Amino acid sequence: MAPERLPPGSRIGILGGGQLGRMLALAAARLGMRAHVYEPAAEACAGPVVERLVRAGWDDRAALAEFASRVDVVTYEFENVDLAAVDALGDVPVRPGRRALEVAQDRLVEKAFLSGLGLPVARHAAVDGPESLATALAEVGAPAILKTRRLGYDGKGQARLGPETDLAAAWAAIGGEPAVLEGFVPFEREISVVAARGIDGAVAAFDPGENLHRDGILHTTTVPARIGTGLAQDAVLLAGRILDALDYVGVMGVELFVTGEGLVVNEIAPRVHNSGHWTQDACLTDQFEQHVRAVCGWPLGDGRRHSDAVMTNLIGDEVNGAPGITGAAVHLYGKAEARPGRKMGHFTRITPRD
Amino acid sequence: MAPERLPPGSRIGILGGGQLGRMLALAAARLGMRAHVYEPAAEACAGPVVERLVRAGWDDRAALAEFASRVDVVTYEFENVDLAAVDALGDVPVRPGRRALEVAQDRLVEKAFLSGLGLPVARHAAVDGPESLATALAEVGAPAILKTRRLGYDGKGQARLGPETDLAAAWAAIGGEPAVLEGFVPFEREISVVAARGIDGAVAAFDPGENLHRDGILHTTTVPARIGTGLAQDAVLLAGRILDALDYVGVMGVELFVTGEGLVVNEIAPRVHNSGHWTQDACLTDQFEQHVRAVCGWPLGDGRRHSDAVMTNLIGDEVNGAPGITGAAVHLYGKAEARPGRKMGHFTRITPRD
Repeated sequence: MAPERLPPGSRIGILGGGQLGRMLALAAARLGMRAHVYEPAAEACAGPVVERLVRAGWDDRAALAEFASRVDVVTYEFENVDLAAVDALGDVPVRPGRRALEVAQDRLVEKAFLSGLGLPVARHAAVDGPESLATALAEVGAPAILKTRRLGYDGKGQARLGPETDLAAAWAAIGGEPAVLEGFVPFEREISVVAARGIDGAVAAFDPGENLHRDGILHTTTVPARIGTGLAQDAVLLAGRILDALDYVGVMGVELFVTGEGLVVNEIAPRVHNSGHWTQDACLTDQFEQHVRAVCGWPLGDGRRHSDAVMTNLIGDEVNGAPGITGAAVHLYGKAEARPGRKMGHFTRITPRD
Repeated sequence: MAPERLPPGSRIGILGGGQLGRMLALAAARLGMRAHVYEPAAEACAGPVVERLVRAGWDDRAALAEFASRVDVVTYEFENVDLAAVDALGDVPVRPGRRALEVAQDRLVEKAFLSGLGLPVARHAAVDGPESLATALAEVGAPAILKTRRLGYDGKGQARLGPETDLAAAWAAIGGEPAVLEGFVPFEREISVVAARGIDGAVAAFDPGENLHRDGILHTTTVPARIGTGLAQDAVLLAGRILDALDYVGVMGVELFVTGEGLVVNEIAPRVHNSGHWTQDACLTDQFEQHVRAVCGWPLGDGRRHSDAVMTNLIGDEVNGAPGITGAAVHLYGKAEARPGRKMGHFTRITPRD
């Protein structure tokens, strides 16, 4: 067993070497920790900022075991880590744990988990093929959104269904995978709460941010969200219940719809979250450091917001304008190729708190 | 010649792999840049956060040339870079330039440079041996401080002289090196201005901080300094004159005494400076990013202070208490051995601006 509080100089293994792994590694470095990254893809933008990059597949049990043997704790930057890969890590602590992965990897399991906590989720039904899609649509009603149960992100693996939609085509469009049909939630706005839970069970939530999407990808997060104090407190308490129920250690993103009848949970992500990037520049302790603190067994830091903030993603070739952005904190991920739809960086403007 | 504005993904070579190089590398990473570090010492705490670490001596011309050939610009984390080493780098731009090194490497040259700008410095005289020390002491008056012209830092290479001091012993104590005798400046407080100058000549200064030392090593920097607006403006303008006179590109630390007759320049450091570490947590753009922006030819960032701050150094085994520090931003350097007097990390508390 690792000691309860890892000393500076300890090694943190991160599964996944994208921008979230990169920013986790930078936060780990600030605390004097060393980061190792495991990434199957040819390009791992976290590579140039870590002590060690292992390029091997999720099915390479030997590489996973060797990776784990050199670190004091393992965490992950994305929720779709194969559970067999987690098992291959051996005895090293993995934080947040297996349970969070099991829940968050399957939209249907996640909705059942949230409903079981008494939290409101969208009307939904399981879909296993074109026929059950018709049944589900009758049950949930149009408009609705068909989503694969597994492996969707940034709007991928999703199809919108109206009353006239060709169901077979929609089923084919998402790849013919087991899916869930979600009723459309008539929301006023989308917010998210990024919250951390320490190894001692202490919970610290960042202030809720308000999210705007473009083409299914997060465009901006604005903090504070334009919601009342009561709703903001509800959102934070709700996030805390989810963290406690999972005996969670680390940072989680909880996406919520604000509706006329209150909050509806859209989805949870058992990791640092794009909608929490504003914390880098508007809080003393940001989401990345909070996650590192939690998984290392350190007390959580001060996540209070010292400034109001607007975070804007830089997608695809928008990154080329980055050197000319003034009056903002610019964060770039060091990715070589600015493909359309690819998250290349973000920038955050802050203003004094209202 | 490198392009005027280096694109993200460019490589920055840093001479010196200590904590300043490490924090420069982390700031470079935030902007999507890749850092290479050149460090002769066996331990280079910047190593685990950079793309490439070269361990070779300052006299290894081949290693220096090879290092330079792989980067787009070279900068340095300390002022005592051998000028022959700079020459060995070849055609790559070195920022801040040679001139700043020449001036800052020799206390006597530095004082002549500052005096030439009409800036007040302490009374002083050159000392080449025990005999000229007696002459110098008669000229400058006791109490005074004998400092080696070159290679002193954190109080090393210094001796205090009173009317009764054995001059031969003092001369021996500083190593018998060419020296300068400085008259003691009866100061009310010590402040410093950390300022940046861009490739376009724009200057951006951080607010002056007030410094407290312990055993010759910086202990805390508090911002704002307890000085009037007029004096703060004087300090900033004075720093700007120094930067302009050197056609400087990058960040400089300017240490000042506040006296009854106004400001006296203590010394300048042509690099990021310990007394500027507070900017990491109280400004949108900190000194490290400001330096990276400057040497990459990017416009300077927004260095305004959003919060008041107190930065405290963690010296020697004080670092062991770091995991228990709450309500502060903790920055650790990842050094293996907590030797007495060694800078191991720092922490910064912020409060809303007055």
